[in-house]
Amino acid sequence: MSVTSPAGPSSSVVAEIKEKARRLRILSMMATTAAGSGHPTSCMSAADLVAGLFFYAMKFDPKNANSPDGDRFVLSKGHAAPLLYAALAEAGVFPESRLMTLRTASSELEGHPTPLIPGVDAATGSLGQGLSVGAGLAIGARLDQSPTRVYVLTGDGELAEGQIWEASAFAGHDKLDNLTVIADINALGQSEPTMYEHQMDIYKKKFESEGFATEVIDGHDVPAVLAALDRAKATKGKPQAILARTVKGQGFSEVAGKQGWHGKPFSKDQLAAAIKELGGGIDVPPDPGKSYARKSLPHRADFPPPAAPDYDPAKPLATREAYGYALKRIGAVNPKLVVMSGDVDNSTFSEIFAKAYPGRFFQGYIAEQNMVSVSVGLAAREFTAFADTFACFLSRAVDEVRMAAVSRSNLSLCGSHCGVSIGEDGPSQMGLEDIANFRAVNGSQVLYPSDAISAERLTEYMARTDGITYLRTSRPKTPILYSKDEKFPVPGFKVLRQSAQDRVTVIGAGVTLHEALKAADDLKAKGTAIRVIDLYCVKPIDGKAVADQVKATGGNLVVVEDHWAEGGVGEAVLSALAQAGAAPAKFRHLAVTRMPHSGKEKELLDMFGISASHIAEAAMALA
Amino acid sequence: MSVTSPAGPSSSVVAEIKEKARRLRILSMMATTAAGSGHPTSCMSAADLVAGLFFYAMKFDPKNANSPDGDRFVLSKGHAAPLLYAALAEAGVFPESRLMTLRTASSELEGHPTPLIPGVDAATGSLGQGLSVGAGLAIGARLDQSPTRVYVLTGDGELAEGQIWEASAFAGHDKLDNLTVIADINALGQSEPTMYEHQMDIYKKKFESEGFATEVIDGHDVPAVLAALDRAKATKGKPQAILARTVKGQGFSEVAGKQGWHGKPFSKDQLAAAIKELGGGIDVPPDPGKSYARKSLPHRADFPPPAAPDYDPAKPLATREAYGYALKRIGAVNPKLVVMSGDVDNSTFSEIFAKAYPGRFFQGYIAEQNMVSVSVGLAAREFTAFADTFACFLSRAVDEVRMAAVSRSNLSLCGSHCGVSIGEDGPSQMGLEDIANFRAVNGSQVLYPSDAISAERLTEYMARTDGITYLRTSRPKTPILYSKDEKFPVPGFKVLRQSAQDRVTVIGAGVTLHEALKAADDLKAKGTAIRVIDLYCVKPIDGKAVADQVKATGGNLVVVEDHWAEGGVGEAVLSALAQAGAAPAKFRHLAVTRMPHSGKEKELLDMFGISASHIAEAAMALA
Repeated sequence: MSVTSPAGPSSSVVAEIKEKARRLRILSMMATTAAGSGHPTSCMSAADLVAGLFFYAMKFDPKNANSPDGDRFVLSKGHAAPLLYAALAEAGVFPESRLMTLRTASSELEGHPTPLIPGVDAATGSLGQGLSVGAGLAIGARLDQSPTRVYVLTGDGELAEGQIWEASAFAGHDKLDNLTVIADINALGQSEPTMYEHQMDIYKKKFESEGFATEVIDGHDVPAVLAALDRAKATKGKPQAILARTVKGQGFSEVAGKQGWHGKPFSKDQLAAAIKELGGGIDVPPDPGKSYARKSLPHRADFPPPAAPDYDPAKPLATREAYGYALKRIGAVNPKLVVMSGDVDNSTFSEIFAKAYPGRFFQGYIAEQNMVSVSVGLAAREFTAFADTFACFLSRAVDEVRMAAVSRSNLSLCGSHCGVSIGEDGPSQMGLEDIANFRAVNGSQVLYPSDAISAERLTEYMARTDGITYLRTSRPKTPILYSKDEKFPVPGFKVLRQSAQDRVTVIGAGVTLHEALKAADDLKAKGTAIRVIDLYCVKPIDGKAVADQVKATGGNLVVVEDHWAEGGVGEAVLSALAQAGAAPAKFRHLAVTRMPHSGKEKELLDMFGISASHIAEAAMALA
Repeated sequence: MSVTSPAGPSSSVVAEIKEKARRLRILSMMATTAAGSGHPTSCMSAADLVAGLFFYAMKFDPKNANSPDGDRFVLSKGHAAPLLYAALAEAGVFPESRLMTLRTASSELEGHPTPLIPGVDAATGSLGQGLSVGAGLAIGARLDQSPTRVYVLTGDGELAEGQIWEASAFAGHDKLDNLTVIADINALGQSEPTMYEHQMDIYKKKFESEGFATEVIDGHDVPAVLAALDRAKATKGKPQAILARTVKGQGFSEVAGKQGWHGKPFSKDQLAAAIKELGGGIDVPPDPGKSYARKSLPHRADFPPPAAPDYDPAKPLATREAYGYALKRIGAVNPKLVVMSGDVDNSTFSEIFAKAYPGRFFQGYIAEQNMVSVSVGLAAREFTAFADTFACFLSRAVDEVRMAAVSRSNLSLCGSHCGVSIGEDGPSQMGLEDIANFRAVNGSQVLYPSDAISAERLTEYMARTDGITYLRTSRPKTPILYSKDEKFPVPGFKVLRQSAQDRVTVIGAGVTLHEALKAADDLKAKGTAIRVIDLYCVKPIDGKAVADQVKATGGNLVVVEDHWAEGGVGEAVLSALAQAGAAPAKFRHLAVTRMPHSGKEKELLDMFGISASHIAEAAMALA
């Protein structure tokens, strides 16, 4: 659709785009007034930009809106959803009548975009994440050798989010020249003017410092918008930033440029006045009720069985290291596997994959938020995306993982260095809340292997699994417990010590599973039998199966975890038991309850109450 | 100590600083070799900078290392802790022998700094947070009209963290000229070289674009370091950035400038070689074992009772709005109260405080990470710091809240717009994991008021309480349930419907408490009595007291929450009951289990299984 004549777009093209922008403004206002909520002024500032994108610059097929070879659009300022929906309607993805179902319970056109809507790759609405998603789409396009260009529309309030600058640095450093960010700089935040208002030069310096080809335009001057989009498309070797000076609420003089109209729909009277000012209305028939939600979302590609792990069963190996070997083995049979790390791949061991497949490893540097959202972009192009860092540093990206779930994304995360067992580095490096954080993600699965074999098999399971999957790995070397042919169903657990005389069930995972085995062996030598369960899958849990084990040991249960007491293994088990109509008769929960401290691994397990001697003591108290 | 002669520091001062730097290098290496772990090369690149800071530029009293009128130092690159500890020892805070206890379980000198160490205001070790903390200290100093200057030392790897740029924009916009950031640019990250290595100009452009007076120096040229510190101190109207080009491992040629030495202590032989290269050792006697941990940490100031809430008991009011009124009433009697919001103060209602006390409200803009860590800086200067945004957007700052706990900080957070009850905005704006996230914070308290009176009283409670406190507020208006004289002890709950015939206990909070009351009233009209509990305090919970209630209703319990099933009210209650040796006989947990959707509030409560009719149904199933 774009005219590449050196003279720029013809006057008829300009007129067409102006008319599209006019319609987008009106439809955004009509939809939000019908809904009784929404952000029309945020839509109106960006209408000329979006019109230029959808009806001039972008290669977009309404019949195949998520095509991997079409251009992609990410609405980072997700609250301008009605504007995007209006553009999709104008482009022919669905009828305009559908817009009047905005924000209703039965409509795919929700208050903020989700990938259930054709043309949308990732949910937005939590600001500052869209540029990372766009960078992921752009990298994915490059890997696919696709001509796809990626356009990201941001607001200006969201340019205060640090993640925008993580993403910019990442894109600039990687010279992602198939990525264009258009910033709708309307100067007004939600509660007050933005930090820089219309000081365009400040924004220009920021983007230039990140390595973007940057220009400032009047975002309501349609020929200027189109010309800037042409120049962006022609730019090689750098991503591009078009900084558009705009007016919030542009088109309706009653609100244009005035604070206090963020997130406020117009009354029917205001709507009529605005439509009049914009040159007349659009007739939209009643909506017949047909949904245009996408029928299918990206899925992870299947792949043949990787080579089996080949560890020497007599040599302890850390689960974090086995994760690295697993990635390499899976990478050999799954060309879609891509991995990112937050500058700690030599600690998480994804460096093993990185060395074997450097073209499929992307250094995230110390920028976890960006790493997660870039992975969401890669996943939208059906790559099998893994991202890893220390478990505690994944807490930097909880919002991004939350939005990945709203995006129905397929994303695997690995958090290493969990718990006090990391030792001397101390609490700032100890993941003690990650199980809580990642259980509380819709549809997530949480896996916590205790040995290298289960770590490998569970990593493979994750690579085959849609949704959000989280693997918790440990720093210390631990003995190998399972044979290479062992299977690890999800949900599931392994009973590693059992007899007809078991007095208590002890559930552990990771390092505490090994402590529990030690406790069991110590107690057995003294004449007391206890059952030990390796809960390698913390979410989901088959409560009935766990209840059967606990029942067989007189209802006595000890759960021991290298994690805070809240939201972790203990609470997961109690909850699963309760769901199954069961509860322990007697219960002890060993977890980290005081702020930990530097020290040796074994010392700390003991100081913080989760070592073998504590487990034995708790078991004996119940037995 | 600094010489302000126009000719700069004398050659004897320069020689002294060089000798200090030499000693800091040696002590850092000795400490990490003794510990068998740590990051000597990260210390060695910054030794000249830290020597210049502690022994030339900073006003620092070793007998009063956390003095509010002394200069403050934040080691944002927390893994260089041994360097900081060596400087504190050289300055006389504790003997050098103490350094040899680094990273041991009984020593206050942990792997990464905590405020238990004199001179430290906030724990670091999760990169990218220190500049925000420094900005908070600087703002606090300004509020206190203190001559304090704040110095923040960052690494370069951590300049990839977006939060650094949130903090920079914030400091630049606020013209915090009592804040100097010194960046130790040694070009080597943990796993590979940093993104920009020694391209100093890129960093210079970034800081300049944020409004910093910025210069580039050779970080090992001591006269240049001292001169830059002098220029920084003399700069008015802008924060300052000194970008120091350094060499990782500077001083020991075997490692200097070489990748692969991050986080690796030197062997005894290497240590000997390094000491020789650095011109000879330092005799350090054995440590006698005396701790130098601070005897007391900042506490929140007491304040007289604020004015009582004066709501019309007949008019529903949202708990989010009551929070705003509470802040204003507390602000009137507590001059230490300071509040930040993430550009949503008109939604969280802290705007009520902001309008009354504009000098004590700081706009965080859309940058939640920075907002939380700035608050930690303010709290270190004993301000009573509150920060608010939508509950879901606080998930952007989970790592920062985690580090606030390691900092033993006193910090109050308010997350509004919790749950599906927000309605049409849809899931990207719904806080559904915040209870899980903030329960899993060491020592935290989680409060979830159901009406305006309890919201006010709990806000006041938080303002009087040390540690991390979290208030969950709701968007919809809800009826007032309590009289203005009602007290809300922590832990605690209110029994709002009870009789001797109660068949089931229903525990709700926030909007689900109101749904539970409706269910109770509906069931009562049909002849079935149920008990209704308002669990306004979700952490801590008195499990025995809850167990007594459940026991009185035949052991039948329904918990209903506007939150995911994981880590929230239901799991908190089950866990508390189990700790008390109790469990429900029959249990139903109503929570949000599917990804929510836009829609009307009441519609969504019903669609997602937590409305009055669902509660009644669950209660009848157990009764």
